[in-house]
Amino acid sequence: MNFCSHCGAPVRFAIPADDDRPRYLCDNCGTIHYQNPRIVAGSLPILKDQVLLCRRAIAPRKGCWTLPAGFMENGETTPEAAIRETREEACAEIEIGGLYTMVDLPHINQVYMIYLARLRDDLTPAFAAGPESLEVALFYEEEIPWSELAFSTITKTLENYFRDRARLEDEVRDVHRLAHYALHTDVIRRW
Amino acid sequence: MNFCSHCGAPVRFAIPADDDRPRYLCDNCGTIHYQNPRIVAGSLPILKDQVLLCRRAIAPRKGCWTLPAGFMENGETTPEAAIRETREEACAEIEIGGLYTMVDLPHINQVYMIYLARLRDDLTPAFAAGPESLEVALFYEEEIPWSELAFSTITKTLENYFRDRARLEDEVRDVHRLAHYALHTDVIRRW
Repeated sequence: MNFCSHCGAPVRFAIPADDDRPRYLCDNCGTIHYQNPRIVAGSLPILKDQVLLCRRAIAPRKGCWTLPAGFMENGETTPEAAIRETREEACAEIEIGGLYTMVDLPHINQVYMIYLARLRDDLTPAFAAGPESLEVALFYEEEIPWSELAFSTITKTLENYFRDRARLEDEVRDVHRLAHYALHTDVIRRW
Repeated sequence: MNFCSHCGAPVRFAIPADDDRPRYLCDNCGTIHYQNPRIVAGSLPILKDQVLLCRRAIAPRKGCWTLPAGFMENGETTPEAAIRETREEACAEIEIGGLYTMVDLPHINQVYMIYLARLRDDLTPAFAAGPESLEVALFYEEEIPWSELAFSTITKTLENYFRDRARLEDEVRDVHRLAHYALHTDVIRRW
């Protein structure tokens, strides 16, 4: 940030009065420009025993596999953002379950929120590659390309899911009932 | 937003190529200025059968009671933001429990995240009014000033807590064990 977005004057980076950290300050119009973390919302789309992954067509991590997720927009809720991103990246419609992983990434000022979701399979096609995806496909647990996943948030979400599912199987519970899966929270402080 | 914060040229508000919603665009340097929701992080500090509330010294809702909460900063995690806000507004130290309420407020581009927390009572004083609070006090359930609470997110969080606590009492479980309390998610679309 070099200029005030309100009046166009140059800004300086300094600690305002009554504050404890530096901000971009405009001495011309007095605006303090705060900067805050952004939310990345997405889904883990599930169809029976398979999960839906997208292969990225764009940087970063082009060619790697990910869950549909992206920056939440103003005016929408986090589940609405997850539904929109799934529609954009995987051309897929989902029914949202609970919030499943919430991961803080303080080194890049992001908070990931991934929802469990049921992939609708009554549409034709049920999914396809959107403009930001090279391909979209369903995977059984043993087919997950663990070494080619794009982000650690995605790896953690899938690890949590298959671990929870195995535990639910041991408890002879219906592993397809999304309400059985509780929230996992985590922090990642590296790339 | 009137001017580009990167180069200082005037911006226009229009839909960029390959996008589906208007953004602030700089035709001089090509920067697209995205705007995204902000996270409000806070805590519900609990000491045995009482909860800690702060009476607001600042607008909006000056004079009303609230839980310690505020905008998450870059470089911190959501629990760290909740701890910092509790320290700033209530001069109190807490031990963070689980994420308890997550409320989308799409009409004001905010997402509230309130953590259950145990108020430390081994410090003297255990709490005091910070610069943004007129007073800070502990309340039993029957003392909560329901009609003088500052925000609907705070009302919902306290309602959830006392309802969950009553249910845990019915189940003859230890109501002071924060791990018994599960996440509530909600959307509020009005002021």
